[in-house]
Amino acid sequence: MDLATLIGLFGALGVILSAIMLGGSVGTFVNAPSIAVVIGGTIAVTLTQVSLGEFFGSFKVAMGAFLYKQSKPEQLIDEAIELADTARKEGILALESKEIGDPFLDSGVRFCIDGHPTEVVQKMLSKDINLTLERQNVGIRMFKSVAEAAPAMGMIGTLIGLVQMLANMDDPKQIGPAMAIALLTTLYGAIIANAIALPIAAKLKKISSEERLNKLLILESISGIQDGTNPRVLQQLLTTFLPENKREAVLKDK
Amino acid sequence: MDLATLIGLFGALGVILSAIMLGGSVGTFVNAPSIAVVIGGTIAVTLTQVSLGEFFGSFKVAMGAFLYKQSKPEQLIDEAIELADTARKEGILALESKEIGDPFLDSGVRFCIDGHPTEVVQKMLSKDINLTLERQNVGIRMFKSVAEAAPAMGMIGTLIGLVQMLANMDDPKQIGPAMAIALLTTLYGAIIANAIALPIAAKLKKISSEERLNKLLILESISGIQDGTNPRVLQQLLTTFLPENKREAVLKDK
Amino acid sequence: MDLATLIGLFGALGVILSAIMLGGSVGTFVNAPSIAVVIGGTIAVTLTQVSLGEFFGSFKVAMGAFLYKQSKPEQLIDEAIELADTARKEGILALESKEIGDPFLDSGVRFCIDGHPTEVVQKMLSKDINLTLERQNVGIRMFKSVAEAAPAMGMIGTLIGLVQMLANMDDPKQIGPAMAIALLTTLYGAIIANAIALPIAAKLKKISSEERLNKLLILESISGIQDGTNPRVLQQLLTTFLPENKREAVLKDK
Amino acid sequence: MDLATLIGLFGALGVILSAIMLGGSVGTFVNAPSIAVVIGGTIAVTLTQVSLGEFFGSFKVAMGAFLYKQSKPEQLIDEAIELADTARKEGILALESKEIGDPFLDSGVRFCIDGHPTEVVQKMLSKDINLTLERQNVGIRMFKSVAEAAPAMGMIGTLIGLVQMLANMDDPKQIGPAMAIALLTTLYGAIIANAIALPIAAKLKKISSEERLNKLLILESISGIQDGTNPRVLQQLLTTFLPENKREAVLKDK
Amino acid sequence: MDLATLIGLFGALGVILSAIMLGGSVGTFVNAPSIAVVIGGTIAVTLTQVSLGEFFGSFKVAMGAFLYKQSKPEQLIDEAIELADTARKEGILALESKEIGDPFLDSGVRFCIDGHPTEVVQKMLSKDINLTLERQNVGIRMFKSVAEAAPAMGMIGTLIGLVQMLANMDDPKQIGPAMAIALLTTLYGAIIANAIALPIAAKLKKISSEERLNKLLILESISGIQDGTNPRVLQQLLTTFLPENKREAVLKDK
Repeated sequence: MDLATLIGLFGALGVILSAIMLGGSVGTFVNAPSIAVVIGGTIAVTLTQVSLGEFFGSFKVAMGAFLYKQSKPEQLIDEAIELADTARKEGILALESKEIGDPFLDSGVRFCIDGHPTEVVQKMLSKDINLTLERQNVGIRMFKSVAEAAPAMGMIGTLIGLVQMLANMDDPKQIGPAMAIALLTTLYGAIIANAIALPIAAKLKKISSEERLNKLLILESISGIQDGTNPRVLQQLLTTFLPENKREAVLKDK
Repeated sequence: MDLATLIGLFGALGVILSAIMLGGSVGTFVNAPSIAVVIGGTIAVTLTQVSLGEFFGSFKVAMGAFLYKQSKPEQLIDEAIELADTARKEGILALESKEIGDPFLDSGVRFCIDGHPTEVVQKMLSKDINLTLERQNVGIRMFKSVAEAAPAMGMIGTLIGLVQMLANMDDPKQIGPAMAIALLTTLYGAIIANAIALPIAAKLKKISSEERLNKLLILESISGIQDGTNPRVLQQLLTTFLPENKREAVLKDK
Repeated sequence: MDLATLIGLFGALGVILSAIMLGGSVGTFVNAPSIAVVIGGTIAVTLTQVSLGEFFGSFKVAMGAFLYKQSKPEQLIDEAIELADTARKEGILALESKEIGDPFLDSGVRFCIDGHPTEVVQKMLSKDINLTLERQNVGIRMFKSVAEAAPAMGMIGTLIGLVQMLANMDDPKQIGPAMAIALLTTLYGAIIANAIALPIAAKLKKISSEERLNKLLILESISGIQDGTNPRVLQQLLTTFLPENKREAVLKDK
Repeated sequence: MDLATLIGLFGALGVILSAIMLGGSVGTFVNAPSIAVVIGGTIAVTLTQVSLGEFFGSFKVAMGAFLYKQSKPEQLIDEAIELADTARKEGILALESKEIGDPFLDSGVRFCIDGHPTEVVQKMLSKDINLTLERQNVGIRMFKSVAEAAPAMGMIGTLIGLVQMLANMDDPKQIGPAMAIALLTTLYGAIIANAIALPIAAKLKKISSEERLNKLLILESISGIQDGTNPRVLQQLLTTFLPENKREAVLKDK
Repeated sequence: MDLATLIGLFGALGVILSAIMLGGSVGTFVNAPSIAVVIGGTIAVTLTQVSLGEFFGSFKVAMGAFLYKQSKPEQLIDEAIELADTARKEGILALESKEIGDPFLDSGVRFCIDGHPTEVVQKMLSKDINLTLERQNVGIRMFKSVAEAAPAMGMIGTLIGLVQMLANMDDPKQIGPAMAIALLTTLYGAIIANAIALPIAAKLKKISSEERLNKLLILESISGIQDGTNPRVLQQLLTTFLPENKREAVLKDK
């Protein structure tokens, strides 16, 4: 479903690869030690900042985030209104038998059924939202630190190459190719940072903020359900979570 | 109506184009693979961070924002005062027959007529303001990420060109033109970022913050109307939304 | 009165100009197309982000800010204490006949005389302070965007010049002068940003925050006057707005 | 236990060292004056910003942070629930005989036993959390300022080397090696900043924010214990501090 | 007492100077016009942003800050506890005869003796803290703007030198020395920013935040004294302002 992300990631690398192939031999751009310096160094620097578990876990987190199907706000609103209707007519305990699609909405409704007072439910759910956000930030920050480490290691590699070249300039013919190799690490670093790590970090952030918005919508719904708000009023309140052009559809629906 | 923006966008590109033409043949500055790397790469990197819908939608959003005619604060104040007058004399229900120009003011008045208590109305409208702001930020962030991706792809293209040139320096005469081509991607990236994407992002942000200010003014008006504030007092309060040199006109008006 | 700003602006340009003249002919540094690219491009990019009115208005705003004579906090305190004294002895309506120097203090006192309750007066004045700040930020941001656009256009100009030079390197003797011209746009951009736009933006920000502090002092004074605070206590409270070495003078004064 | 950090720190330096050794003699990369400029200068600049005590203390702080074993949130929850159970059944004073593993939880429980009212306990503990955060930030900022000073001193060293080389270009054969030496300081600065100081600062920040989260969990627990919250409800509230996949384990546990 | 700062400032300049002297004649690095451009330009740009009084005043502020002896938190706690003891036993008026070392604590106690209610005292002291912070920020920002202006002027100077050199490349032997001179302004700018202005700004910021922490401790003490808090409880609250390893000493003391 995250078609754009897949197209984007492979598209960017494809564009770079075709630019390389168009200009001649690909071999010029492959240099094992340079690859080792940039990728090895980037991994090492990133590892310093996290635990081993988080390092390997964050790839799973990233994959999970790309595959995770977010509930659509429209559906959440419909589901919440239905629950509010039932709760109003038959009492909150009637919600027990309902099947609820979204897990966060489900756990919120369970809290209500358990009979916790409104403030406690709101506090638990708010805390959950904030702490989930903090946990997701750990993954985002890891990809950001990759995006900072890769160009830095690329620059260090290029400086090492330049010093080696400058210190031994006996054969002028070797200067060009030596500089070419020295520049490779900078190129690798720029590609890793700009075509891979930064876009992934941005995507994770976007997913995280969409999830937060959904959860805020649910928080509002639960509050309305528990307070016995008129479902019609609740619906009007919840539609503010939608962009204006989608509000009509939801409101007419009812 | 956004004449300045149009003049600016075309002016910047015009100035750059004339600088290119003045220096000789335009052909030197056109290189299909370089264009493909920078534009293709920038689109790909941007796509990674958004959904396909948002990518194409944001151009519509941008166009819409440029064409959308913002209500003038002075008019909003006049309209709000008139409504407050009517509400005070004939009751809030008398507003039902009024034609209201601004859609946000209109929906606020509808909420009042529906009989929601003040806090509920304020909460709905505040939520609407904040969530609209968040939605507009998505578009702004997309143009900002274009402004970051374009120079990055430009640098990657230049590095690829430099490596190719340095690895094959047999014919010294080719060094100059090869470097010229290598630099083109950097030039493209700089133009896309600085003459197109960044100004559009800044303009969208400005439109968004003007709209927010208008909506805050309306929020204040609705609150005044619902609380039955003296229209004269309300007017004094609302004129603080205007710069000092425009306040007199509005206050004398009455 | 803003002697330092005048000395600074002309001093910076003077220092740069003398560095140019010292090194030989000034003519080397004047190149009409380069000037057109940087200044024209910077104006165009800035225009994109604002309206025509704001663009021309902001020069007036800047001039006005430099010429506007800020009230001194010490004088404001003296004036406020006097008003508080009068209000306490003869009632708030006695303030009607007073001549008040500062326009913001004056409008605050008028609100009190009009009989608005304390919260309404505080709300109106606070709103005024915040919205004035937002309006002044528009001007500050415009000069900041000039400071970002100028070096960007300078770099674009230099890249164009470099590409033209590298593509036509038939006459080695022309390389030097051609590069000199290419670098001129970068130089222009750096001068516009660092010696003109950034200092003006910083100065406007400083003026704006001084005005804000003055208005906060007045807000506090009005609150004290309306609540009938003991003028002696009010004075102690207001002197916290002064640096420690100036407090004694004000306190002894009384 | 901070295996990842150790692997990372030594890995990054190892990768850089092998890149140097692969390219030829290590001697080319060792230049005593260059080392003195970068390391000496960085230490000096950092010293300017702190006190002697803090400078030497921060190494101890860093070591301590790496070795300090953080309590696991799961254990803290278990411990807190047990305490809440006891307090509910036998009264808060019964906690006196309990052995509590975590020092912050222990001091919180002591405050409860001492009979301070809830607000005072919460205030003391919150203050403790915020002030500990501020103190840890001092150490983080020191390593960040090292990461800023090192590249700056590296650039200053390279500029000095370049000026010396350019002023005496009699022997063209010396240009290469001289530039190699000039570049060394930039290389040193980049290594110190990117492979040592920045990762340590990031790690310290991460440890600090994990500790903060643990302490917020304890704050919540103490509040629940003192208010006599149902241990089952408290447990549900505390599990929001865990990522979703770990919650089940804790909840089933009971 | 600020030994580290002195060692740091002179150490950094000493390291740079020895690097210069080691490489040959110091004369290569002294160029009057370059010095004039960088120092003159930096002063001019900084002057633009401040008033003449602030410009000269800020050196006094900086010197004062370095020489000002901050009260130690431990001493403040001891003093506050003693005052709280006296106030509890003999009444607040008994504090009148006490000699109080710290001026802020002293003025706070005076406010209590004057009989102002708790909220007024807290408001006055809080305002004092915030406004002192804002005033100190003016000085910090001035040194930061020096740190931004110096490298900018250095770059402008280098660009001027490069243009002059490139425009007149008749004698190839002059290229090296001319570039050496052109680079000098960049070197000066880097030294002024990184070895002088930035460290001073960081130090001032650190002093300012230490002073703020001390004043917050005093604010808390005054509140406790005025509310008649048990001195033992107050002491526990105040020790949270100390790092953990220093708390024991204070608590045992009593």
